[in-house]
Amino acid sequence: MCSEALLTQAKQLQWIQWPAAGVDRCVQQPLLHERHVLLTNLQRTMGASMAEHVIGLMLALSRHFDYFLKQQEQARWAKEESTRPQLVDLEGKTVLVVGLGGIGTEVARRAHALGMRVVATRASGRTGPDFVSYVGLPDELLKLARDTDFVVNCAPLTPQTTGIFNREFFDTLKPGAYFVNVGRGRSTVTADLVAALRSGHLAGAGLDVVDPEPLPAESPLWHLPNVIITPHVSADTPVSEEQRNFVMVENLRRYAAGEPMLSVVDLERGY
Amino acid sequence: MCSEALLTQAKQLQWIQWPAAGVDRCVQQPLLHERHVLLTNLQRTMGASMAEHVIGLMLALSRHFDYFLKQQEQARWAKEESTRPQLVDLEGKTVLVVGLGGIGTEVARRAHALGMRVVATRASGRTGPDFVSYVGLPDELLKLARDTDFVVNCAPLTPQTTGIFNREFFDTLKPGAYFVNVGRGRSTVTADLVAALRSGHLAGAGLDVVDPEPLPAESPLWHLPNVIITPHVSADTPVSEEQRNFVMVENLRRYAAGEPMLSVVDLERGY
Repeated sequence: MCSEALLTQAKQLQWIQWPAAGVDRCVQQPLLHERHVLLTNLQRTMGASMAEHVIGLMLALSRHFDYFLKQQEQARWAKEESTRPQLVDLEGKTVLVVGLGGIGTEVARRAHALGMRVVATRASGRTGPDFVSYVGLPDELLKLARDTDFVVNCAPLTPQTTGIFNREFFDTLKPGAYFVNVGRGRSTVTADLVAALRSGHLAGAGLDVVDPEPLPAESPLWHLPNVIITPHVSADTPVSEEQRNFVMVENLRRYAAGEPMLSVVDLERGY
Repeated sequence: MCSEALLTQAKQLQWIQWPAAGVDRCVQQPLLHERHVLLTNLQRTMGASMAEHVIGLMLALSRHFDYFLKQQEQARWAKEESTRPQLVDLEGKTVLVVGLGGIGTEVARRAHALGMRVVATRASGRTGPDFVSYVGLPDELLKLARDTDFVVNCAPLTPQTTGIFNREFFDTLKPGAYFVNVGRGRSTVTADLVAALRSGHLAGAGLDVVDPEPLPAESPLWHLPNVIITPHVSADTPVSEEQRNFVMVENLRRYAAGEPMLSVVDLERGY
């Protein structure tokens, strides 16, 4: 929808209601900036659904469901198998939520309810809800990464978040940390993620977004142990769809009535 | 440990510290009752770990991780596959916790934090914490089953809980409900569970305990879709082990000092 070809032709375009949260493809278009097109998105409508996906991935990794499902395919009761990995608790562990916005806040709320210590980074400032014990600015990412057991990326893709999960970042994590991504695949340097998983420094990864998408069949990510890949579906639930429809209909009403719109994107900030 | 042969020989036995929560094998022994042997168990020490396992199974089922992991084995980005199942939200759904004890209460706490409505049954009475909206007695099981989206069995195995998840129970559930069992396999009539899954009336099951254990290779449960089996490992985590060790050491101290013991089993009640 946000292609240069379309925007060039749509000479009277005044408003785009983007049907998702991530507007990185839109804000790259110079025409949108030049013409001061109003861009609204669906931020915050998918927080609950995506947060459930994140908690599900964290538990599936810490409980090694991927391992047990492979045993199950072979009808094998793996209680005493020497290869059985150690199950770990989330309670008492630390999770770093990168991007404490509409999605990250819902992840933080649920992780805290599971007894985790929650720290976060947020581009817009150091404020956050009570259940987040520390909110840092994006330049504190590496400092916070040192003491974390789980990292969850919920940040939008902007020039500032492109490739931030790179070799330096993964090297900074404690051995045995887990990485979950529901933000954007391009925030991660895929080759560095693969290397961190292969070396065992990273204990596992839960990836609803990858770079590139769709993930090509030849990607080594598919077959690494302790990696769970879902195809960018974390917001594809009925509750989420209902909330998206609500915002779109409400914004249409507001646009027609000349009222302030919901979820207006800051084109310069990029989200 | 609780075999008749051992108990017959242990003529001066006064106290058994059972190394787990479920004492169904012990309380069956007539000698224990005749000699008034003190039996303590490890109830409540595994609640947090087992509750994480339960929430993990519920999310793995509602997010269809078993399906996506099978796609992943074939390096397939299944975003647009016609076979892709619908992801569902836990938020707003109802969960019935059967057995609101040390484990069930921790399940209820976490399910409530995920935005679920929690109802429960409890043999010892109708009282429960604020996050459980209704606590019924065991004879209300079928009534409560009618309006539930997820059923989680956390009850001990006693004559009263043997085979309660049978054909009548599964028929009573709404089509599309999910069943999770971390209590004891023999609370379920396995053939009836298999039939409910095969017909599609039950949308899926997460089973950490089954009947019999180990589950034989020829069991149809292994290969039913939307079934996740883990081999009785939900309490096998470091936090859980630490708490178990704490209770065992503390009980030894109390026994030597003649103080009241922790986690004394009511032999007649059976848990």
